[in-house]
Amino acid sequence: MADGTPEQRLALIKENLAEVLNEDIIKKVLDEGGHPKIYWGTATTGRPHCGYLVPAIKMAQFLAAGCELTVLLADIHGFLDNLKAPLELVMHRAEFYRHTITTLLGAVGVSTEKLKIVLGSSYQKSSEYVMDVYKMASIISEHDAKKAGAEVVKQTDNAPLSGLLYPILQVLDEQYLGVDAQFGGVDQRKLFIAAKEWLPRVGYKERAHLMNPMVPGLHGGKMSSSDPDSKIDLLDPPDIVAKKIKKAHAAPQVTEDNGLLAFIEYVLLPAARLKGGEGFRVDRERDGLESLVYTDIAKIREDYQNDVLTPQLIKPAITKALTALLEPIQEAFKNNKEWQEIAEKAYPPPPKKEKKVKNKGTRYPGGGKPEEKELPVRSNGNGDAAEAPAAQ
Amino acid sequence: MADGTPEQRLALIKENLAEVLNEDIIKKVLDEGGHPKIYWGTATTGRPHCGYLVPAIKMAQFLAAGCELTVLLADIHGFLDNLKAPLELVMHRAEFYRHTITTLLGAVGVSTEKLKIVLGSSYQKSSEYVMDVYKMASIISEHDAKKAGAEVVKQTDNAPLSGLLYPILQVLDEQYLGVDAQFGGVDQRKLFIAAKEWLPRVGYKERAHLMNPMVPGLHGGKMSSSDPDSKIDLLDPPDIVAKKIKKAHAAPQVTEDNGLLAFIEYVLLPAARLKGGEGFRVDRERDGLESLVYTDIAKIREDYQNDVLTPQLIKPAITKALTALLEPIQEAFKNNKEWQEIAEKAYPPPPKKEKKVKNKGTRYPGGGKPEEKELPVRSNGNGDAAEAPAAQ
Repeated sequence: MADGTPEQRLALIKENLAEVLNEDIIKKVLDEGGHPKIYWGTATTGRPHCGYLVPAIKMAQFLAAGCELTVLLADIHGFLDNLKAPLELVMHRAEFYRHTITTLLGAVGVSTEKLKIVLGSSYQKSSEYVMDVYKMASIISEHDAKKAGAEVVKQTDNAPLSGLLYPILQVLDEQYLGVDAQFGGVDQRKLFIAAKEWLPRVGYKERAHLMNPMVPGLHGGKMSSSDPDSKIDLLDPPDIVAKKIKKAHAAPQVTEDNGLLAFIEYVLLPAARLKGGEGFRVDRERDGLESLVYTDIAKIREDYQNDVLTPQLIKPAITKALTALLEPIQEAFKNNKEWQEIAEKAYPPPPKKEKKVKNKGTRYPGGGKPEEKELPVRSNGNGDAAEAPAAQ
Repeated sequence: MADGTPEQRLALIKENLAEVLNEDIIKKVLDEGGHPKIYWGTATTGRPHCGYLVPAIKMAQFLAAGCELTVLLADIHGFLDNLKAPLELVMHRAEFYRHTITTLLGAVGVSTEKLKIVLGSSYQKSSEYVMDVYKMASIISEHDAKKAGAEVVKQTDNAPLSGLLYPILQVLDEQYLGVDAQFGGVDQRKLFIAAKEWLPRVGYKERAHLMNPMVPGLHGGKMSSSDPDSKIDLLDPPDIVAKKIKKAHAAPQVTEDNGLLAFIEYVLLPAARLKGGEGFRVDRERDGLESLVYTDIAKIREDYQNDVLTPQLIKPAITKALTALLEPIQEAFKNNKEWQEIAEKAYPPPPKKEKKVKNKGTRYPGGGKPEEKELPVRSNGNGDAAEAPAAQ
């Protein structure tokens, strides 16, 4: 698919995006027949769940459009996220992410030849990088740093200073990863605007920015992250997937903020297109009717609004499609002893009877309310930061 | 002089200080017959002037008391202080400082065998240090960083972010320089209190802190740093020194906030003691009277209050003593070709007709009022930050 005309490639890169800044930068590379370099960053903390499929599918499209994709595993951020966690655990988590992301992208049938996975620690402690951090900190005002992080960093007086420092790091990453563009959720907009302004001030060129819309979670709107049923792990077996989707809230005929429809639009339909599949199939055997096969979200929305597509019909269809999407990942996991061992080391079973803090590892020693202590959350574009504290 | 009993050595270490925190740490080293390690930091920007004699004399006393003294030349801070200055210039300035401080301490007759001069850049860009900066930034709140720097960092919303970062660096320096204590002006008190609290939070031991009082400048109170006459350069020839001291403001009989008396108390008297000299001599030949020789500031104050010591008498006496103090430094400079060359490279004559920003190099590209853009000024304990923007 990386063939195509520059226009076709650009269309695939932009598909489903909410906004693009400095599109010309990408267009130019495409016009020259090159491979735009795009990066996406995530802090390696909690286990990647189905919320990650939203940015992952978009990244698969970048690869399909012949882009060079760099996934930044922000292990230093992961480490700082929970200073009590031993460094070894953080290393294992980064390894777990590496396996997961590579397999995930391969699972939708795109070549991962142009995928590069980079650990933040491989350069964020280097002298050059650090001098640039110092430098940028001395020309960026507190006010501007705050503004840049306004939507992604908890900003109270008691928030850790790192919250003001991280925007600088994230901006410098564009330079140090040598990319043409950064990809993230539209909640990163202020930070991306800052990146455009700040890089030239230390002598670096500004980049393009690709923004996914905020997509409601599978269960609709915000979910309690303390509810284990609210997240579908990428390694959940089919019966658990079915059970969790069954529980998802979805009012009949209401298409707005509908997490199920959003999941079809941003994950299942593009995944089907990438794999060259028929589209999104809704089985109606129970009602003695023929299956419906959709290739277009507009038609799905229409049928949902008219109650042709009911929650009762759509949930098993999503379960089936998602299970099929997860299957090669779970198969790969089953056949990869190393990955399994890493999984156990990266996410050891919690010590019994301790208060659950699963996937919420943003607490620091030294007190304060945990809510005030959260690190900047880099959105994964699935519209639910509460669901995805792991995304940087 | 490093002999003495632990009590005598401690007395010399504490002489003229305003406050000591964690004195026990130093006492313990002395009781074991060891050499307390003390550091003082300064950003390498403007030319060191006579205001530096206040902390320098105190440091000479530390050496005389058998301490190991580390002078941190904060060249990175110097560089960040004025990003427009080429890196080479900053290197030359650090070299200039090295020559000056070594000669200065030698000039009062103390052995500089236990003096270590360290460039900030030699470790502040290392991976270990940087991880600790990241770490500390993620457990220290913005509020606490602000509080720590309240008296030494300009704090407006438009101040650069570095102002919040520098307290962290200064605190970590204690660990990375491997010292028992940090020395600074009493304006550093909040930062020193923070250091005591912060270091243990990242697993390091807390240090002692030695604080010089805020000493009024030679010209009394705050001076305009744009007045070239307000500062006496360490290399000013005797006639210039005489002229500048003549201009110093000093009301007869008023001992409070009297820069001349302060200079005698914190520089000339201790220097005389270190050199084993007779004390501070006031020549009264013009009035046909015998010279007065003081070894005690109390007696000087008393005589000044009673107008036995008039400004007219005391100014030439200070000029004479200061000239004598500077003489070996200037002699060393004259005989050191390398130092002379460095001086020219470090402080090249300003391009004509540009607005003077001499010794005020704390401006950044990117606008904003210069006052709002100043870097943290680490006091040199002479009570006049405006006089000593060079001190970190």
